[in-house]
Amino acid sequence: MADGRLAVGSRLPPTRVLAADLRVSRGVVTEAYRRLAEDGHVEGRRRGGTVVVGPPSALPALPTPSMPLAPSMPLVPPVPSAPPVRRPSAGGRPAPAALFTAVPGDDVFDALRAAPARIDLTPGRPDLTAFPRAAWLRAERAVLADLSAEDLGYGDPRGAPRLRRAVTDWLARTRGVLVAPDEVLIVAGTAQALTLLHPVLRADGITEVAVEDPGSLGSRQHLRNGGLATPPVPVDGDGLRVDALRASGAPAVLVTPAHHFPTGVVTSGERRRELLRWAADGGLIIEDDYDAEHRYDRPPVPALRSHLADRLCYMGSVSKLLAPALRIGWVVPPPRHRERLTATKRFNDLGNAVLPQLVLARLMESGHLERHLRLLRGRHTRRRDAMIDAIAAHLPGAVVHGAAAGLHLTVTYARDVPDTELAAAALDSGVKCQPLSWHRQLPGPPGLVLGYAACPPGVVAEGVEALGRALRALS
Amino acid sequence: MADGRLAVGSRLPPTRVLAADLRVSRGVVTEAYRRLAEDGHVEGRRRGGTVVVGPPSALPALPTPSMPLAPSMPLVPPVPSAPPVRRPSAGGRPAPAALFTAVPGDDVFDALRAAPARIDLTPGRPDLTAFPRAAWLRAERAVLADLSAEDLGYGDPRGAPRLRRAVTDWLARTRGVLVAPDEVLIVAGTAQALTLLHPVLRADGITEVAVEDPGSLGSRQHLRNGGLATPPVPVDGDGLRVDALRASGAPAVLVTPAHHFPTGVVTSGERRRELLRWAADGGLIIEDDYDAEHRYDRPPVPALRSHLADRLCYMGSVSKLLAPALRIGWVVPPPRHRERLTATKRFNDLGNAVLPQLVLARLMESGHLERHLRLLRGRHTRRRDAMIDAIAAHLPGAVVHGAAAGLHLTVTYARDVPDTELAAAALDSGVKCQPLSWHRQLPGPPGLVLGYAACPPGVVAEGVEALGRALRALS
Repeated sequence: MADGRLAVGSRLPPTRVLAADLRVSRGVVTEAYRRLAEDGHVEGRRRGGTVVVGPPSALPALPTPSMPLAPSMPLVPPVPSAPPVRRPSAGGRPAPAALFTAVPGDDVFDALRAAPARIDLTPGRPDLTAFPRAAWLRAERAVLADLSAEDLGYGDPRGAPRLRRAVTDWLARTRGVLVAPDEVLIVAGTAQALTLLHPVLRADGITEVAVEDPGSLGSRQHLRNGGLATPPVPVDGDGLRVDALRASGAPAVLVTPAHHFPTGVVTSGERRRELLRWAADGGLIIEDDYDAEHRYDRPPVPALRSHLADRLCYMGSVSKLLAPALRIGWVVPPPRHRERLTATKRFNDLGNAVLPQLVLARLMESGHLERHLRLLRGRHTRRRDAMIDAIAAHLPGAVVHGAAAGLHLTVTYARDVPDTELAAAALDSGVKCQPLSWHRQLPGPPGLVLGYAACPPGVVAEGVEALGRALRALS
Repeated sequence: MADGRLAVGSRLPPTRVLAADLRVSRGVVTEAYRRLAEDGHVEGRRRGGTVVVGPPSALPALPTPSMPLAPSMPLVPPVPSAPPVRRPSAGGRPAPAALFTAVPGDDVFDALRAAPARIDLTPGRPDLTAFPRAAWLRAERAVLADLSAEDLGYGDPRGAPRLRRAVTDWLARTRGVLVAPDEVLIVAGTAQALTLLHPVLRADGITEVAVEDPGSLGSRQHLRNGGLATPPVPVDGDGLRVDALRASGAPAVLVTPAHHFPTGVVTSGERRRELLRWAADGGLIIEDDYDAEHRYDRPPVPALRSHLADRLCYMGSVSKLLAPALRIGWVVPPPRHRERLTATKRFNDLGNAVLPQLVLARLMESGHLERHLRLLRGRHTRRRDAMIDAIAAHLPGAVVHGAAAGLHLTVTYARDVPDTELAAAALDSGVKCQPLSWHRQLPGPPGLVLGYAACPPGVVAEGVEALGRALRALS
């Protein structure tokens, strides 16, 4: 289908026939057809058989066009900042204006999480009501029944071998990354991965890591905590500006090529090649593959790691697939960094806790995680659509960026209101979100980063309506 | 009973009467009596009621006398080291002699764990076959049923509030430590606690932390990894030599006062007071309360933290209570270090995984953890006795140290054989243990650190017999 050999309207062989041809069990073929159907590539038509309805690249388009940021956008001069407006704070809780300062502190995400609000549109959380509690408990029972006493002792600091195998399979299947289990290090999420990299980078003489701009405030804080400088490199509609990266002279860069945070830009083919050339010239790429699996418009773009092993450190996690509270992620470092990274993990905590690792391994092996991801994709799409509709209705003139994937979108609006003020006013009215300026080091237009995945469509719409009211009241 | 007001032979009031007197439910009193009975302080005598059979300090003595190390012992000149003897290694596994070098590398515990052996007498693991799998699963089911979606998001980096409350109760009940939940930080075990302390100590201008000698090699490695010097301070039969600590000029010290690792010495009352005076003069005590709950001869000594809050950083974990693989521990830092330690934990991993925290909280709240500890105590006592008997039979002239508590004992032997050589020969014959010299920086007689808790009595005895054969073959 992808390369056109199976045209739209053509019929797939009956499962029984294909199974015999390929010498596999019929269940395998049935499952493959089911997945193709779920992903919208084929349709089952009873006696008409299974028919191709669209190639992978021609899936239904977004209901609302998602405008990538214009190339020059991050260089636009900043909207002049009004002096911070202090509002009376209700019932002893921290004043929102104090929370949304222009230069947020290291505990800003804790403070934001602790701030009470009716509606939480902060980005980064999948639909957590969908967490597969029953499946988790079943897998935990199986783990506890199978476990040896030895498994409960001090373990391999790189992670349980069974999970490393399962992650290897997962990466091959979903991210095009082919590695051996011994190349994978299980960590407590991407936050820990970045911290573990500090001594590794220091040993390489690296004292600065370029970051995307806009780009994740949290990642930047984690790098800076290790004494690393984080020179900003602009992102345009094709991804990170590799020419600017070269000009910066930074020896390493942290990127989110599959789904840029927070704008949602997918790095174009040409930019990917440029970035790989930069790495071949001696640069080190740190690839944060943070929610690449959540694409709504087409199959996920393969990870950069699928093209480059030597000068690239790959990291992913289940925070966006299952739950951040699990604190499980993985790193595939370049071979020359593997030993030092393992030593750093050992010194850090002697390795992740074993029980959740083994439970996750089972959910991956059984295909449950993939089914869960498909379930999430459906839910998230409806929530995203609700947000886009509400933005059109309540934030007229606002532009939506990066809505084709992920758990959040970014919206820029056509008024001269600093986004920290807007976010503070929104929190005052019970809606939590993040100002885009938090995620910028270079000047750029104000905006909001809005998570839609964790709230039902009605709540999403209500939240956006409140944002509209807040914006009108301020402008 | 402790202060003599209830003499041996005196009768406790009937539970119904005492419950009415104290205005508590009768179940509370029944449970209290049950615990007193299990700990050997009282006996139920049907119509005779509940009778005091012994004060807490007069519990049955050890079957074999446990000789504390003589005060001058660590200063004895070292046994002259023979050049390392290389043995042919079987079937491609690493040569034991290469593993047991005099200056072990950072990955030595991984290498030792990976080395195949019939019998594993390495210290530090409780009886892991006793892990309460059914209770864990029941608690996990309850947690998954109760959990809010919010609980599955990014959480408080200090740990789940419910576990911090449960740990607070646990510390008050079992360790005499009275703190509020907000003073507790949940971490991934003591290994992580030590690593999290690096930036905290640096901010205090502390560049060296004195350590006990002998003292844990693992702890020393963790401190050194943070660039901290670890000057050794001798331990004698009363605990750490505080005069030597003063003479060292070190601004901080890491101690195991309730049960010294590896010798098992309990810090005497006078030494505890000396140590507290040293802290009052400006020193910082880091108290590793690593297996204080496992006492066989008397109630555990209260933690030093029960006497001092300001100049003491307390740390404990469930590694020795339930399983190292859980990677859950706690730190109670001095108030002035709390904020920086929380920030360090946040940067490290955003906080421990939530599900195991909530499961553990339930096991603590329900009293299951305490029951489990009592079960372990009984099993461990039998295993310890088997080891002591086997040492008397197969290692004549050897001296057993620190057998009144914990999961291991230390044995010194009367021959001129370097303990690294003995440990290597033992591994060659299928028995894994640790040479005492690994845990020394100062010269001292050779010995072995032998864990008995994780193996059934017969296996313990077989292992010690093999050690005896190895020693005879070498001397």
